[in-house]
Amino acid sequence: MKYQFAHRMLNVKASAIREILKATANPDVISFAGGNPSTEAFPVKEIEKISGDLLAHQPISVLQYGITEGDQELIKQATAFFNRHEQVTKDGDQMLITSGSQQIMEFAAKILCNEGDVVVCENPSFLGALNAFKSLGAMLRGITYHNGQLDLEKLEAALSMEPRPKFMYLIPNFQNPTGMTMSLDVRRAVLKLAKKYGVLILEDNPYGDLRFGGEAVPSMKSLDEDGLVIYAASLSKIIAPGMRVACCIAPRDIIQKMVVAKQASDVHSNLWAQKVMARYLRDYDMNEHIDRISKIYKKKCHLMLDEMKKHFHPDVQYTIPTGGMFIWATLPDHVDMLSFVQKALEKNVAVVPGNAFLDDDTKECHSFRMNYSTPTDEKIIEGVKILGQITYEML
Amino acid sequence: MKYQFAHRMLNVKASAIREILKATANPDVISFAGGNPSTEAFPVKEIEKISGDLLAHQPISVLQYGITEGDQELIKQATAFFNRHEQVTKDGDQMLITSGSQQIMEFAAKILCNEGDVVVCENPSFLGALNAFKSLGAMLRGITYHNGQLDLEKLEAALSMEPRPKFMYLIPNFQNPTGMTMSLDVRRAVLKLAKKYGVLILEDNPYGDLRFGGEAVPSMKSLDEDGLVIYAASLSKIIAPGMRVACCIAPRDIIQKMVVAKQASDVHSNLWAQKVMARYLRDYDMNEHIDRISKIYKKKCHLMLDEMKKHFHPDVQYTIPTGGMFIWATLPDHVDMLSFVQKALEKNVAVVPGNAFLDDDTKECHSFRMNYSTPTDEKIIEGVKILGQITYEML
Repeated sequence: MKYQFAHRMLNVKASAIREILKATANPDVISFAGGNPSTEAFPVKEIEKISGDLLAHQPISVLQYGITEGDQELIKQATAFFNRHEQVTKDGDQMLITSGSQQIMEFAAKILCNEGDVVVCENPSFLGALNAFKSLGAMLRGITYHNGQLDLEKLEAALSMEPRPKFMYLIPNFQNPTGMTMSLDVRRAVLKLAKKYGVLILEDNPYGDLRFGGEAVPSMKSLDEDGLVIYAASLSKIIAPGMRVACCIAPRDIIQKMVVAKQASDVHSNLWAQKVMARYLRDYDMNEHIDRISKIYKKKCHLMLDEMKKHFHPDVQYTIPTGGMFIWATLPDHVDMLSFVQKALEKNVAVVPGNAFLDDDTKECHSFRMNYSTPTDEKIIEGVKILGQITYEML
Repeated sequence: MKYQFAHRMLNVKASAIREILKATANPDVISFAGGNPSTEAFPVKEIEKISGDLLAHQPISVLQYGITEGDQELIKQATAFFNRHEQVTKDGDQMLITSGSQQIMEFAAKILCNEGDVVVCENPSFLGALNAFKSLGAMLRGITYHNGQLDLEKLEAALSMEPRPKFMYLIPNFQNPTGMTMSLDVRRAVLKLAKKYGVLILEDNPYGDLRFGGEAVPSMKSLDEDGLVIYAASLSKIIAPGMRVACCIAPRDIIQKMVVAKQASDVHSNLWAQKVMARYLRDYDMNEHIDRISKIYKKKCHLMLDEMKKHFHPDVQYTIPTGGMFIWATLPDHVDMLSFVQKALEKNVAVVPGNAFLDDDTKECHSFRMNYSTPTDEKIIEGVKILGQITYEML
């Protein structure tokens, strides 16, 4: 039988990254294409202990249906945790526990966008979020984001143009895919524009705690006094992604609408994961944990950068992140990026072609994304060397 | 700030059941309003053992990102399990692991329905599914379902009417909310109509294994030779709902589209839950387990029915289920059902007003849903007695 699918799904392709990741199932392939936390970073023993204790002493609370909003103890602990350095939760805000922060992106588009409505995003931006917006019929209006600089004039034009966008999607800290961080001045300016044009901001901050250099910049949520920001905080990158736990903090009206969306979507998030997370946040020193894992990423990032400096053709440019998981490398204009990525894959090294992160992936792009959190040190050294050889062959 | 929400969310209210369930947070309230499995039915010790073993010996496989389609071992075990009595998986079919079967309902509407497209459903039907369809802009066309009888003439009219529906949503076994089961003849006739009009069937079967009387009827999926049926199988009701694991079995093209939808929604389902479920299905005797829990539900169902016979006014009609979790009671036409439900709540007994399960909840309805799986035996006896007194007061 030939099936007819909804229009909204026609623009959403199986993730280019996931297709590349399939190639990386081959153990000979060195993958810089993923975005997985380093396995060394998981608090394995602690989770084992908490889980055993929960299942021995309160198994029903883990196994029975829960409420859509999320486990009350997790909401309490996560609220304390995400407000420890700055006030992200404002008067009138509420928290919703979601099944990973991808779900926050989907719910934001589901509750805010009619078919054909516009979402403004950085260009490039996180592919999974862009796909979530498109899967609900939203149109993307990308604003060039280069070296942490957002063109504010173009942003203002995009916000004032009809049809007015429903929200802006931004990743101010250690952006995926560029690894760059937005300055305080730009954050303030963007907030001012959001207020001027009445456009909400969806602030995605999965990497903010993985800082290993520079100074922390206040989140846009903490700077917002007008109920303009929906804040997506995740425990995937700092505790464990397989547990699928994230927290959305936003004005109550928005959260209440998301609760209705979640009832219709997966009813509630896995309870074991919520309860283990709650206990972990309560009983362990998160600052110490984050300090430990940030050091892992610092070492891996610097190793990759050092090797790139050694082996890459000097005309290849790349970002120098001070946190997060990604480096964004850009080939000179005369070099075909897709051929480069293809050649790399033939030599068993996987990176993600940069056009996958654009509002329109048919646009010309000379960049590619490299991840340093997942591969071992040996693989980083080996893979960068191979990529470096290809840069010399092609430049 | 005043937020403007998408049109698609305007028709979806916070679940009426969940609002009533809030009232039941009061420990004095006897709740027949839920749909939770009996806590006695959870294989607590086995899950504790499997979980401990997994976290001790392969923690990374539980904590790292997984693939969207689902854990390969769970797919293998669940395929064997759901095909043990009949062949539901056909040539060309594939399985997708989802975060509860609610997610299958949402994905079906997301990939198949444009805004304004029609979904045919039984009237009454499961509220959560109807809300999922509405939350993606689908319109409901309900066909009266009474005592397990579906009006086939009306169904044919609904299938042939323009705009042609995109799919029918059916719960053939121990339906929620009526508790009734569709006969083999009706299933065959519905399949024939589905083929004639090229309309897919979404067959929701969360309760099929909770049979405690009568003979099993083949699933529509097992009878389908034309790739017409999307089959939603769940482990929530037979193992544990807090783990949020269900399985969708459908033709590959449909599953592939659902995979894209899931990438944009929650990336993958919680890995701990998937791996615990896989191990449980592999290592324990599921037939023995199902036999044990069906006996629990049989006892509770018969207790409730016996008490209803003793205490309810004889003019109140109700279904006699042979499985599942629900009884559907109907007051005479001259009695206002919402007043009855309100009076019951004032006397601390909660049931769900039947209109919540209709395609249009403003329609007249004299029925209400009672659940016997969640309350203790003592609460069943006490609560039915109170409801019985109200029937005599109002009839």
